[in-house]
Amino acid sequence: MTVSMNSGILSRHDRKAALMRAHFEATNTFVVNLVSGPGAGKTALLTEILAALPRRGLTTAALVGDCATDNDAQRLAASGAPVRQIVTEGMCHLEVTMIDAHVQGWDLNDTDVLFIENVGNLVCPAAFDLGETARVVMLSVTEGEDKPLKYPQMFSTADLVVITKIDLAEPCDFDRESARAAVHTVNPTAPIVETSVKYPSTTGAVIDWIVDRSSERFPPVDPRKEKG
Amino acid sequence: MTVSMNSGILSRHDRKAALMRAHFEATNTFVVNLVSGPGAGKTALLTEILAALPRRGLTTAALVGDCATDNDAQRLAASGAPVRQIVTEGMCHLEVTMIDAHVQGWDLNDTDVLFIENVGNLVCPAAFDLGETARVVMLSVTEGEDKPLKYPQMFSTADLVVITKIDLAEPCDFDRESARAAVHTVNPTAPIVETSVKYPSTTGAVIDWIVDRSSERFPPVDPRKEKG
Repeated sequence: MTVSMNSGILSRHDRKAALMRAHFEATNTFVVNLVSGPGAGKTALLTEILAALPRRGLTTAALVGDCATDNDAQRLAASGAPVRQIVTEGMCHLEVTMIDAHVQGWDLNDTDVLFIENVGNLVCPAAFDLGETARVVMLSVTEGEDKPLKYPQMFSTADLVVITKIDLAEPCDFDRESARAAVHTVNPTAPIVETSVKYPSTTGAVIDWIVDRSSERFPPVDPRKEKG
Repeated sequence: MTVSMNSGILSRHDRKAALMRAHFEATNTFVVNLVSGPGAGKTALLTEILAALPRRGLTTAALVGDCATDNDAQRLAASGAPVRQIVTEGMCHLEVTMIDAHVQGWDLNDTDVLFIENVGNLVCPAAFDLGETARVVMLSVTEGEDKPLKYPQMFSTADLVVITKIDLAEPCDFDRESARAAVHTVNPTAPIVETSVKYPSTTGAVIDWIVDRSSERFPPVDPRKEKG
């Protein structure tokens, strides 16, 4: 799916995304769109994040997209955060109308950070703005160093790139510098963090990034964030 | 991308795919459409296959699709087989018109097995018939056991499922039986083979499958295959 092929569809989507973004802004909700190929570890990382953010004073909720099954919503629900599964029935990406429909009934004034775990796909979700505040693109060391060059549209739109499964870097002969260079070829300014859920301390950099960016975007008011 | 959303597009594609298939049949060319998520190891496996098939008396060629770069064509060209890169410029799957355009000038009468390495994507390529004789769907142990349930359209259309990177099964806590059960839930009859290019002997089962299926489909005529 390319932007040029779908410019009519996308401009309609983009108008809806702008309305969705205005709604998120009005409720002071920092929204993270989490994208990667299948099995890069979105749900595993999000499990760590949902456990950590309440200890940093932030309330959370999550939407999770898959072509089929509610496996991921079940995994994430253990966090205690409100979680809803979006089953796309074969569609390759989430669209803003699905986000709008699935946040109905949630009071986003009570949600500091909303996570949207997209369908596992490094191509199509790149073209669809969901009204998010930030896009986090994940790449597993098992996928190889050149994926940013092969999927430039996705990596060029990343606000943060997370390299996952670094515990497998050695058996995968993963070349860290080559991967970082590939990211910066398509996105010169994106920060890059390296994580493994097998070493929970490594996920701290992602959590710090979310806490810092969300408090910059929506500064807390003494002593707790004043919600819109 | 779903079949229902694109039924008009797909029926036009399907007519073109039927013509392409008829052309492949007329030239006695066995065509394999190789699909997986990003980084499951399509190019690595295909490198082994292209090296092995000439020793089994079969001539080969390959088309390889990516959103950007010709990295994979460069890797595969080392085999000596004719190889062409299809750069989709952001499109999420290959279509039969691209296949038709990129086999121009090749005499398929001289090609026993043509491989088409699709764009790394477990969703969209499922819906697009390329006129292939067989579809091989690959799943890396690093992606997790439940991917066949999450991407049922893709796995349900597989003639062969190849589980890759089995050298990483232990560090990934990969549950072999759970993965096999997931495949058979959506595709009860698909044969499953487990491979790792780190253990070259394991790729023999894939190579045997291709040799056996292609000789069943286009039986060789004494002493060499008589080409259409």
